[in-house]
Amino acid sequence: MIVTITLNPAVDTCYYVSSFLLGETNRSDQYVKTAGGKGLNVSKVLKQLGADVIATGFLGGTTGQFIAEEVQKKSIISRFTQCKEDTRNCIAIIDQAGQHTEMLERGPKITEEEAKKFFQDLTELYKLREIQAIVASGSIPAGLGKDYYCHLIREAKFRKIPFILDTSGDALKEAIQAEPYLIKPNISEVASLLEREIRTEREVLLALQDEKLRIIPNIVISLGAGGAMARCDKEIYKVIIPTIEVKSPVGSGDAMVAGMAYEITKKSTNEQVLRVGTTCGILNAMHVETGYIDIEKFNMLYKEVQIIRLN
Amino acid sequence: MIVTITLNPAVDTCYYVSSFLLGETNRSDQYVKTAGGKGLNVSKVLKQLGADVIATGFLGGTTGQFIAEEVQKKSIISRFTQCKEDTRNCIAIIDQAGQHTEMLERGPKITEEEAKKFFQDLTELYKLREIQAIVASGSIPAGLGKDYYCHLIREAKFRKIPFILDTSGDALKEAIQAEPYLIKPNISEVASLLEREIRTEREVLLALQDEKLRIIPNIVISLGAGGAMARCDKEIYKVIIPTIEVKSPVGSGDAMVAGMAYEITKKSTNEQVLRVGTTCGILNAMHVETGYIDIEKFNMLYKEVQIIRLN
Repeated sequence: MIVTITLNPAVDTCYYVSSFLLGETNRSDQYVKTAGGKGLNVSKVLKQLGADVIATGFLGGTTGQFIAEEVQKKSIISRFTQCKEDTRNCIAIIDQAGQHTEMLERGPKITEEEAKKFFQDLTELYKLREIQAIVASGSIPAGLGKDYYCHLIREAKFRKIPFILDTSGDALKEAIQAEPYLIKPNISEVASLLEREIRTEREVLLALQDEKLRIIPNIVISLGAGGAMARCDKEIYKVIIPTIEVKSPVGSGDAMVAGMAYEITKKSTNEQVLRVGTTCGILNAMHVETGYIDIEKFNMLYKEVQIIRLN
Repeated sequence: MIVTITLNPAVDTCYYVSSFLLGETNRSDQYVKTAGGKGLNVSKVLKQLGADVIATGFLGGTTGQFIAEEVQKKSIISRFTQCKEDTRNCIAIIDQAGQHTEMLERGPKITEEEAKKFFQDLTELYKLREIQAIVASGSIPAGLGKDYYCHLIREAKFRKIPFILDTSGDALKEAIQAEPYLIKPNISEVASLLEREIRTEREVLLALQDEKLRIIPNIVISLGAGGAMARCDKEIYKVIIPTIEVKSPVGSGDAMVAGMAYEITKKSTNEQVLRVGTTCGILNAMHVETGYIDIEKFNMLYKEVQIIRLN
């Protein structure tokens, strides 16, 4: 069983318009509303891979209820903690020229009691079920301290459950103190973490071996179309991906995390973890829908991913 | 008891941002989410006037549930008919320069059964309660014919209940065939109805007396800051309003309709109907909140509204 944590989920609405005009009344006949948030994308992909998954996090108001219903429709088990304020809406408007405008809500402010309740709900879950991995993805909502992930990571370590973390900014900076099992920053996230520019392959290599990050057993730096570079314990890997037609890269990082988490629960080799994760990331990019992978194409793509050990 | 009909309600979200940039990710910490739709604005003002009001229409999904909860919070009785598709979201983004950008969803498509169910629910209500007026406001959602208001008006006429209609375009064009008790178009709506330009006071006067509209007992043409002109049976009136500081004119027409409906149920004189309606419209414009009137200021403003009989 894998637990996913989405502290700040969102109702994602994507409007398709011929043109989007500032200062005008725009109308959209075509729109898609989905349960969003990085951890929920991970849950969807895990489900498609056949993993047992429980989605957790905070949900509030009727927007929260929309997410609960969508998660249920996908037959994903969930144990969300109720919060008083409404779950946020995130709006994307895409015009025919492909211009992408976003309007993101801040989301609910979590109270101290709600934060405690979530922690209780989660530990209750650890006691009741055999949890083989925890995946926490995305930002920390207002009200929770920037170190909130630290508490969760320490609890997981105490229970010897690998904690996979995909976040950025201060949340990531704080969380690494608690030594998560795996982090998956992209180049700009790792640059911000190490407070220096990272552009060349050599700079990525140095980042993976940086003193500050030594305590993290597994670091995967995603490079978009450039694949990924990773350090798993002391081994360094380069991941080369085939050229594909990208429909939408949104959620590919989440799909990659899902694939890696699944393999980690199977105690697979480092190569296998990286290969399955990368395959899921590519499969997600091949579809417009976020958190969807066409499992039929898995084996074909899987073979085309190259994992090279660099040391 | 007054029944309001909102066939196509909306969750109105207004985002306040310093600047709204196309093609960018914009974030908003400050936003207001309300139960919207013209008929709901009418309901809110009626409630503030002390009228007994029942809100009806279609609600669907978790957005519909948000509206049901908001209506309940305002202690407004409601008898909404469930529809399968989700109630729409309407989004407004206001930047610091005052630029107003809107993104409106189409809203649910109402099925034939849902349309029948609404009609049943409404007639059931007429049987159970003593209804003194019906107010129908706003557009007709997809799935319902453009003549949907005609059916509702005919049923009301059969039951001798005055039917007040505030809509536009084809819905208004069709509905006048069924002879609603009162319509309240603005200048552009009446121009579209009569298919000619209307700009001068003389042209408004001619419109009120137009052959096409003779069958409608009461026509109030709202002129914004210019007040209104009206024909009640054969009497023609000009409404002159005091100069006020306008905070937001959104919903002022709905507030005016609410005030008029309330006076109609009290069998007040034409002058009284116009004066109370106009006062409510002005009070709404004096506040940012849509469908809110500061009842404390009612008497003061009421005295400043002038009703002049022109014939």
